[in-house]
Amino acid sequence: MLDQVTMADAPEGEKQLSKKELNKLARKAKKDEKAAEKGGNQQQSATMDQEDYSKDFYGSYGLVNSKEKKELNFLRVREVNVANATKDIWVRGRVHTIRSKGKNCFIVLRQGVYTVQIAMFMNDKISKQMLKFVSSISKESIIDVFATINKVETPIESCTQKDVELLAQRVFVVSSSAPKLPLQIEDASRRAPTDEEKNSEQENQLAVVNLDTRLDNRVLDLRTTTSHAIFRIQAGICNQFRNILDARGFVEIMAPKIISAPSEGGANVFEVSYFKGSAYLAQSPQLYKQMAIAGDFEKVYTIGPVFRAEDSNTHRHMTEFVGLDLEMAFNFHYHEVMETIAQVLTQLFKGLQQNYQDEISAVGNQYPAEPFQFCEPPLILKYPDAIALLREHKVEIGDEEDLSTPVEKFLGKLVKEKYHTDFYVLDKFPLAVRPFYTMPDAHDGRYSNSYDMFMRGEEILSGAQRIHDADMLVERAKHHQVDLAKIQSYIDAFKYGCPPHAGGGIGLERVTMLFLGLHNIRLASLFPRDPKRLTP
Amino acid sequence: MLDQVTMADAPEGEKQLSKKELNKLARKAKKDEKAAEKGGNQQQSATMDQEDYSKDFYGSYGLVNSKEKKELNFLRVREVNVANATKDIWVRGRVHTIRSKGKNCFIVLRQGVYTVQIAMFMNDKISKQMLKFVSSISKESIIDVFATINKVETPIESCTQKDVELLAQRVFVVSSSAPKLPLQIEDASRRAPTDEEKNSEQENQLAVVNLDTRLDNRVLDLRTTTSHAIFRIQAGICNQFRNILDARGFVEIMAPKIISAPSEGGANVFEVSYFKGSAYLAQSPQLYKQMAIAGDFEKVYTIGPVFRAEDSNTHRHMTEFVGLDLEMAFNFHYHEVMETIAQVLTQLFKGLQQNYQDEISAVGNQYPAEPFQFCEPPLILKYPDAIALLREHKVEIGDEEDLSTPVEKFLGKLVKEKYHTDFYVLDKFPLAVRPFYTMPDAHDGRYSNSYDMFMRGEEILSGAQRIHDADMLVERAKHHQVDLAKIQSYIDAFKYGCPPHAGGGIGLERVTMLFLGLHNIRLASLFPRDPKRLTP
Repeated sequence: MLDQVTMADAPEGEKQLSKKELNKLARKAKKDEKAAEKGGNQQQSATMDQEDYSKDFYGSYGLVNSKEKKELNFLRVREVNVANATKDIWVRGRVHTIRSKGKNCFIVLRQGVYTVQIAMFMNDKISKQMLKFVSSISKESIIDVFATINKVETPIESCTQKDVELLAQRVFVVSSSAPKLPLQIEDASRRAPTDEEKNSEQENQLAVVNLDTRLDNRVLDLRTTTSHAIFRIQAGICNQFRNILDARGFVEIMAPKIISAPSEGGANVFEVSYFKGSAYLAQSPQLYKQMAIAGDFEKVYTIGPVFRAEDSNTHRHMTEFVGLDLEMAFNFHYHEVMETIAQVLTQLFKGLQQNYQDEISAVGNQYPAEPFQFCEPPLILKYPDAIALLREHKVEIGDEEDLSTPVEKFLGKLVKEKYHTDFYVLDKFPLAVRPFYTMPDAHDGRYSNSYDMFMRGEEILSGAQRIHDADMLVERAKHHQVDLAKIQSYIDAFKYGCPPHAGGGIGLERVTMLFLGLHNIRLASLFPRDPKRLTP
Repeated sequence: MLDQVTMADAPEGEKQLSKKELNKLARKAKKDEKAAEKGGNQQQSATMDQEDYSKDFYGSYGLVNSKEKKELNFLRVREVNVANATKDIWVRGRVHTIRSKGKNCFIVLRQGVYTVQIAMFMNDKISKQMLKFVSSISKESIIDVFATINKVETPIESCTQKDVELLAQRVFVVSSSAPKLPLQIEDASRRAPTDEEKNSEQENQLAVVNLDTRLDNRVLDLRTTTSHAIFRIQAGICNQFRNILDARGFVEIMAPKIISAPSEGGANVFEVSYFKGSAYLAQSPQLYKQMAIAGDFEKVYTIGPVFRAEDSNTHRHMTEFVGLDLEMAFNFHYHEVMETIAQVLTQLFKGLQQNYQDEISAVGNQYPAEPFQFCEPPLILKYPDAIALLREHKVEIGDEEDLSTPVEKFLGKLVKEKYHTDFYVLDKFPLAVRPFYTMPDAHDGRYSNSYDMFMRGEEILSGAQRIHDADMLVERAKHHQVDLAKIQSYIDAFKYGCPPHAGGGIGLERVTMLFLGLHNIRLASLFPRDPKRLTP
């Protein structure tokens, strides 16, 4: 391709290099040398000792800075299997574990979530020096190996590729790791001991990496099979959400994150310096979804960051999370929307269980959890009925009182017992506990056309019919003491006719966490942000 | 579904309403009454005059607050066609235009980008009062119409549904618009006059809405066929980008937007108050993509907002835009990645031209542009060759000088003339003009392993091989006077082995704008943000 499209490939001739450039080149050369050092030194000292008949078959590439175009046909580790036995292949991966004893060396090579054993024996192809070099490669270094795939009699239980091993012929270091790791991948992959195990007298309890160490060294923690599985499932949630909505005629939109006034009143909002003035970070894309509805997009969704300046240091709060937001015009009743959302989520759960079973199992190995249960059609509970159910179980709670987190959890337990589902919808929240733009119930002004959705007893979605009438919106905003001047453009959006509409916002990391039964939302965020964490 | 899943549907009995609640209900009732006013008044005054035999067939629904579940089988306007002629159907849409003369009334009803004519004639089913009511409905109001589909002899050129009209039997207002609109949809949909047309002596030049008026009243402007087409194409770009990358084994990730230190040095970064300290808005997700690569995700992409505190008030700068970012480990040469990206974009352009021809034409009607041209394989130009081409055309420019915007544009023109493509890659930028994390060229230290991609002579992507070696990164950061303490976690990411990798970031709105040949990026942003605009 390149030949055809690049301009004049003629040599550029001798060029004058400035002093600066020469220095740069010198630094680079030194660098390359340093990177190749280990290999080089070995080879050099070896030559003094005895001739190294393997010297061309190992070493370090030095810095891979695109010096040359080289084509090696690498086989993926997951394809290193019996079907390919006896073949000579190249493979690139990380040194997951390495142990050498005298005349042989065994490496477990890891590529993503797949592992294969590499064996190396000193022989007439593999010199003492080569074996010494390979044995000295630090864990987590990336290496290229040329090897023969060899069928084994006894399955190698410690690897994903159990029926074969690789007999190495050449080994080159692509990128070497510092020898001392702040955490061991095995430790980070280990299931936390149960309380029972903790209390047992067992002496040889193995290390488990705590959450802060994980997050401080996220790059290493992300290399575990569990992390790979969690974030593949998370990508799957986004993918399914979009596909399901696309199929239902929704349009994806992009909502701005810098806004001129707090979208939900002034509390819990981050302020941004904006040139000579200030602005805020959107606590939700809701107003923009609604404006898209007023702009006749009918059904819209958006996936993007949402910011909450809440000083909540809990297992389920972050200051920045990803919102899966949708909004939809309806004909006569907001249940048209609420039922759609509940169906979308149910379809999503099904899709995950169908397409991500390996990943779900992988996460379960480290963080055991009951499989996520749901029913079809989804369970929809009315708020007053939920209150009644709670009271039956001796919870004291007022008719128009909001649910506290422990009460939510308890309700989830009761619902699970009674209806055998980890997912349900709670409909008709008291008006008093909802934002100003929520449509009051048409029959009983104490309630509203609003709903939350729950997974394993924790809220993952909040939604409602929104007020689509400008006059009524003004009245409700005044009632909530919202500064009208600041939401003028929002109110104006409803002056020129707007279809009745409802929607909701789903927390991506909460869905990930609760679907998998994780104990902390930070495990479901690549780089979590909370009041105390802004790095990495 | 509801019956099966809701709890106890038993009547709730008489409930004591508080004073507050009673007031609320009263307000609501008043509201409903007001909403129904027009219809009501008409009917009332009519009864004094003569009996209104149509009184049940028109009026206003009042506030649609989910009072009742009603099922009407609405036909979509695009399905109002000859195949359905003679059928009686319900349809919901906006009053696009309305004109009445004496005993008849004609409405163009709009639903998204589709329009159909409604005709109403006074007769023994349609009373004088009904006709008067319908005639008084303001433009942009949303109405429900029950009508017979009638085949017409002469095509109705002003509508998308040309072969049929609707003979209305019932008309109800769902949501009424204020009678005075800040802009007319027809004006906002009109093609801007060419310079020639402007200079002509023609007296009856029609109004065209200027950009600020459009954006101030974005909800109305979004209702035009052009806006619908633009944002469907934009959604299509995201959709194709993801599908193409998914098929190539990329994983979608989410990168945080609140960061502890400016990602690209301190300039042009927005500061955020973060509890008792401060933080910044990410100028790019790059560092996080790279950490995902160091975490062995191999190929990742992310779509999300990107923030730039540049006080640039140009046709192509915004302070917040959407980045389509990707990053990919490679084996030996960054061209593996650069060529992948160029192919992904080419595939994307093809997909758009195949799947969005109607939308592209619709935009072209208002904003005429040459169809976007590209070649396969994509054109890749080396920077020094581009400089040579410019010099051939009398542009004075140094070897290591960056391209100014006008020079970029001019280069695009030269490339188009010579290679007949609106899309090309410019490879090997001078090292001095690229960020500290860019890998220097292996052969000539004046250059770097970096590239930009252009559409119609404007940059849409910037990318490079990144330095994946911690020591070298430190050295280059020092050279660029980047505060090492602030990027420690970034540097640490490369200490434990990292595959060589490259990537790039694409501006979504720029791709949308330049693919369609729009003249201003704000037209390609739902709610654009620039130094002077934070609303709506």
